[in-house]
Amino acid sequence: MVRLHFDVLTLFPEMFTGFLSSSIVKKAHEKGIVSTSVVDFREFSTDKHRTVDDTPYGGGSGMVLKPEPLFRAVEHLLQDEPERPPIILMTPQGERFTQKKAEALAEHRRLILICGHYEGYDERIRQHLATDEISIGDFVLTGGELPAMVVMDSVIRLLPGVLGNESSAKDDSFSTGLLEYPQYTRPAEFRGWKVPEVLLSGHHQNIERWRRQEALRRTWERRPDLLRTARLTEEDRAFLRKLEEGSGE
Amino acid sequence: MVRLHFDVLTLFPEMFTGFLSSSIVKKAHEKGIVSTSVVDFREFSTDKHRTVDDTPYGGGSGMVLKPEPLFRAVEHLLQDEPERPPIILMTPQGERFTQKKAEALAEHRRLILICGHYEGYDERIRQHLATDEISIGDFVLTGGELPAMVVMDSVIRLLPGVLGNESSAKDDSFSTGLLEYPQYTRPAEFRGWKVPEVLLSGHHQNIERWRRQEALRRTWERRPDLLRTARLTEEDRAFLRKLEEGSGE
Repeated sequence: MVRLHFDVLTLFPEMFTGFLSSSIVKKAHEKGIVSTSVVDFREFSTDKHRTVDDTPYGGGSGMVLKPEPLFRAVEHLLQDEPERPPIILMTPQGERFTQKKAEALAEHRRLILICGHYEGYDERIRQHLATDEISIGDFVLTGGELPAMVVMDSVIRLLPGVLGNESSAKDDSFSTGLLEYPQYTRPAEFRGWKVPEVLLSGHHQNIERWRRQEALRRTWERRPDLLRTARLTEEDRAFLRKLEEGSGE
Repeated sequence: MVRLHFDVLTLFPEMFTGFLSSSIVKKAHEKGIVSTSVVDFREFSTDKHRTVDDTPYGGGSGMVLKPEPLFRAVEHLLQDEPERPPIILMTPQGERFTQKKAEALAEHRRLILICGHYEGYDERIRQHLATDEISIGDFVLTGGELPAMVVMDSVIRLLPGVLGNESSAKDDSFSTGLLEYPQYTRPAEFRGWKVPEVLLSGHHQNIERWRRQEALRRTWERRPDLLRTARLTEEDRAFLRKLEEGSGE
């Protein structure tokens, strides 16, 4: 049985074809862990011109998505559904998307994602149809399609059986609360730039300590805000104090 | 002449087809404002198995992208280029992408975007090839392809001539420093939910004030951090004080 079903409401269904037929996402669909319906909500407009947007009340440039097509599309999807799943509006005004939110969404059996395009949503869609509003960041995009794919990708890779190697999600940035330590692979020397010796030493404990310290150092340099919530040991704190004092070499 | 050229280095070129052939991005290409080359950097591996990744030095799960194919791919792209354009690594460890960064990138004539997939980058790619590292947020994705599309979309819509109505980018969230005010369109009453009367009044000044206050209210409720950097008038500050005191109705 499918573990998670996505309904994606969009005016640009063709934007999803490359995403759905590539990589991990494709495999998750082939394995039957995930299924996706991409729905063009223009099909649910009621007038003969198939209108989905109109000018804003009170004037101003741009267009606003009308409530009716989206309400009708969602109601059609949920007609045989006993429980209402999350109905998520992709919008720059929403809650900031995080790994924690991805983990929470991965618990559901069904998710409905609504993608606006160019224009805003009529406020009644926010107030009376959506259960969640999600933003992927403080930047302006043409529509909600890319943010919807971002949410889908991050959720899909958390589902059991999707990633071949269960442990490979474990050390990712944000899963540990720190940025990832530097990684190196062959060749040991590339154009004169060498791999740090400790990584070639075979000394497991030294390698672990080096990696932990480099993860701390990188987080301290680039994203000190993450240190406030990361789980730190006494040894971690001592190393961070050394960095603060400028002697962390 | 093309205003901005993107080179996208990826192992999954097919992920970009839907994105490049839709909406604003398609139009920007058709108008000749933007051009894009999607390059499979596996073509630049030198061994007969076309290897692009290898196991990490020091052990651990996952794979690491080798330096050689990416160095060779970038050098091939830039062989006739007198100046080095930004070479941007898409990575969760990068600088957080913002509208301001989009505006800065939109000033360039060429941008090279490097998309890793699953695995990390060999550190020498970060240190000696990339000029920028960008993250779109604190969540884990399968690869850098969706983040690259996010960057492209936000940059492309800033280029002159791309958006039909030049003013339609102006009121977007983040362009003003505040979240957008609520929008409404026809019908004036939908399932008993009415459009606020002020928007039907035709009184321009009252509408402007209502919109400003609702933008402030929404930002105060959802993203108070934005108020620290937004440009506020004395009237704005007075309204925010009323909200703080619980009398902002």
